[in-house]
Amino acid sequence: MLEAHLKEIIRDIPDFPQPGIIFKDITPVLKDQALCSQIVDAFVDRLGHMEIDVIAGIESRGFLFGMMLANRLNVPFIPIRKQGKLPFKTISESYKLEYGQATIEVHEDAFPAGTKVLLHDDLLATGGTVVAASKLIQKLGGTIAGYSFVISLDFLNSQGRLTRFSEDIISLVRY
Amino acid sequence: MLEAHLKEIIRDIPDFPQPGIIFKDITPVLKDQALCSQIVDAFVDRLGHMEIDVIAGIESRGFLFGMMLANRLNVPFIPIRKQGKLPFKTISESYKLEYGQATIEVHEDAFPAGTKVLLHDDLLATGGTVVAASKLIQKLGGTIAGYSFVISLDFLNSQGRLTRFSEDIISLVRY
Repeated sequence: MLEAHLKEIIRDIPDFPQPGIIFKDITPVLKDQALCSQIVDAFVDRLGHMEIDVIAGIESRGFLFGMMLANRLNVPFIPIRKQGKLPFKTISESYKLEYGQATIEVHEDAFPAGTKVLLHDDLLATGGTVVAASKLIQKLGGTIAGYSFVISLDFLNSQGRLTRFSEDIISLVRY
Repeated sequence: MLEAHLKEIIRDIPDFPQPGIIFKDITPVLKDQALCSQIVDAFVDRLGHMEIDVIAGIESRGFLFGMMLANRLNVPFIPIRKQGKLPFKTISESYKLEYGQATIEVHEDAFPAGTKVLLHDDLLATGGTVVAASKLIQKLGGTIAGYSFVISLDFLNSQGRLTRFSEDIISLVRY
């Protein structure tokens, strides 16, 4: 029900950011905050028995629902950001893009070793950013309790890149 | 009370992003979601009689509390983003930085003309980004109902740059 409704609201933008890519635009979803609350409810339902100490959200769309979910569960929210944005001591991880590379960072003191982390982003595409974020969490001695995405592009077969970190992958809208 | 408590938790980072600047780091606040709820409560209290149709939040730290506040008030959340990030048709506004310039964008269909917009960001510093965001809202035919910031650096005297758009400026932590 929620998935079908979200598929009606999420907007396809052809050829963004490059020719041949159909971008899934969630900004129409953000206009309906009752629907946004249902998204958070659905994450909470699906988390079930999962033990979560903190939620890490990936800049910047991962901040939207990641922060709301952390607030609902009353656990810390940890921002994972692009290089040069976090002001305290950081560790970083670089990953390949189609052209060039990108680097993301997390604060060294984001959480203590042994912490169980739910990693959140709005969308799972090829998984490059999410794999890099997972490595960052492991470098800090954390474990990946699971993943939560609003959308996953399952035709890209990227969930297989995440299962070595955690089998618990929640996605509300699958394409 | 809340202001004093937040001043204990917000972390000063000297010489970030440049020598001579003391950066106010809110990441320790995000670890305490009960405190984050108090921030949202305080915004709601201070909004008082203000008529708000939508909340616009500035990428990316403005997404954190902007989205939560929109959810609490059950009004649409409108992301204002850096150039090239929003996938649909956008309008843009450029502004000067100390070195060079920056451009921010909003979707053309973010809201209809006549909409009363609360503009949110985590921190008001020199106000350059917030003034540019205010102009974007006016270009779409919206009016600024008011501003909400977690932190304002009042020693930079930037509130005076905003009063031509709205006199209603909420700031929870003033330096």
